[in-house]
Amino acid sequence: MKLNIFKIGGNIIENQEELMTFLKSFSEIDGHKILVHGGGKSATELLLKLGIVPLMIQGRRITDSETLEVVTMVYGGQVNKTIVAKLQALGINALGMSGADANSIQAHKRPVTEIDYGFAGDVDGIDASILTSLLNLGLTPVFCALTHDQNGQLLNTNADTIASALAIGLSDEFKTTLNYCFELNGVLKDIDDKTSVIQKMDSKSYETLVSEGIIAEGMLPKLHNCFQALKNGVAEVRIGNLGLFEKENSNYTTLTL
Amino acid sequence: MKLNIFKIGGNIIENQEELMTFLKSFSEIDGHKILVHGGGKSATELLLKLGIVPLMIQGRRITDSETLEVVTMVYGGQVNKTIVAKLQALGINALGMSGADANSIQAHKRPVTEIDYGFAGDVDGIDASILTSLLNLGLTPVFCALTHDQNGQLLNTNADTIASALAIGLSDEFKTTLNYCFELNGVLKDIDDKTSVIQKMDSKSYETLVSEGIIAEGMLPKLHNCFQALKNGVAEVRIGNLGLFEKENSNYTTLTL
Repeated sequence: MKLNIFKIGGNIIENQEELMTFLKSFSEIDGHKILVHGGGKSATELLLKLGIVPLMIQGRRITDSETLEVVTMVYGGQVNKTIVAKLQALGINALGMSGADANSIQAHKRPVTEIDYGFAGDVDGIDASILTSLLNLGLTPVFCALTHDQNGQLLNTNADTIASALAIGLSDEFKTTLNYCFELNGVLKDIDDKTSVIQKMDSKSYETLVSEGIIAEGMLPKLHNCFQALKNGVAEVRIGNLGLFEKENSNYTTLTL
Repeated sequence: MKLNIFKIGGNIIENQEELMTFLKSFSEIDGHKILVHGGGKSATELLLKLGIVPLMIQGRRITDSETLEVVTMVYGGQVNKTIVAKLQALGINALGMSGADANSIQAHKRPVTEIDYGFAGDVDGIDASILTSLLNLGLTPVFCALTHDQNGQLLNTNADTIASALAIGLSDEFKTTLNYCFELNGVLKDIDDKTSVIQKMDSKSYETLVSEGIIAEGMLPKLHNCFQALKNGVAEVRIGNLGLFEKENSNYTTLTL
């Protein structure tokens, strides 16, 4: 049985029109599927409105208790429930979830080293059994970027990591494809040329591209995680603009081992 | 099979200690159960912080689009996910839901008459089948006070009404008890005497108490709804402080037909 896991980022979520285009494409994909979303700039906007200074270090949010409250409201409440209601209107029986719901994603608070990330979660594992049961009921889980430590503490957790953990954890039950959706058509050879999409990449060609310095620095950790997912049972990873995924001869990047 | 549905109000939710006491009692109740919560004053507090004037008419919130965003964040995000995480720590496999999730509660926007309540929902029905499946998976649904119109619109919906609709809708599948939990020990004969709990009430004694003017005005619509639930298949309604429900010889009000 096939399972498609899609992760969408802030740029899609923040633009009402792009979000609706994405959700329509998502609703038309056959078979079992899961959606994972971050919260994008709306959390930062609410923090600022409430007079809380957003703290980021190396692109990662520092989650103090006030910030955790805000991301719980924005990711778990506003963004998640809005997407669920829109998907229901499109005929998809969506079920909004955090990792605390049905104990679906277990995590621990990131240990303090040089940086104290606060209430940030590192994923330990997922409950493949309950998620398989939910999928078999015809439900489409919609995950926000929150997990829990099983001791009552919610944790702000990277949405890419959640998508990858779900794809890996469900690979025994399903032939799993992990789809990272963003505004570009895929991984680019030349960051200034949006048509220079690398259509196929395997671990060997990836290493060559890295050694030649062709892959931009920002993409490195993302691609590293993709290949980790492939090594741990995920059948395929696709990176690009979801609207194009289901069209023939489309331009996007497919990763395999 | 028995099903216990509990509704908790703002006074329990806002007090961290009372909430934990309630959740502990709730976690100790055997068998299938569902929790329904409102959001209490935290939504009003956030509205005020954001410079939005909360509008209430006859004790009911007027939900304009800004207010809907805030209640979606507070009820669906902060309050719901916090309760779910706390219940998980107590060993209960909680699943946070709005009526949009799994299309579990269908509603329509309240028609505008003399008052325009905005995005307020009147419940049409529930999906007993999916909820039964979720309960049979060992999950404990935790509902916030939000429903949807199946056309993509979330709706702010009275938590008492949601609890009652769930109890009625699940009465074919389960022997259903509806529990309204609040700070008092039950329905009082004398509003100034907190020990004057009416322990048992049926539709006949209720009518007598109403005609004698003994039941306070604020309780009338609540009790009317309770008897409606009993007439529609709910086995029993209990009103009082949940901590006492499971103790012998406790003081609370039990309603039967």
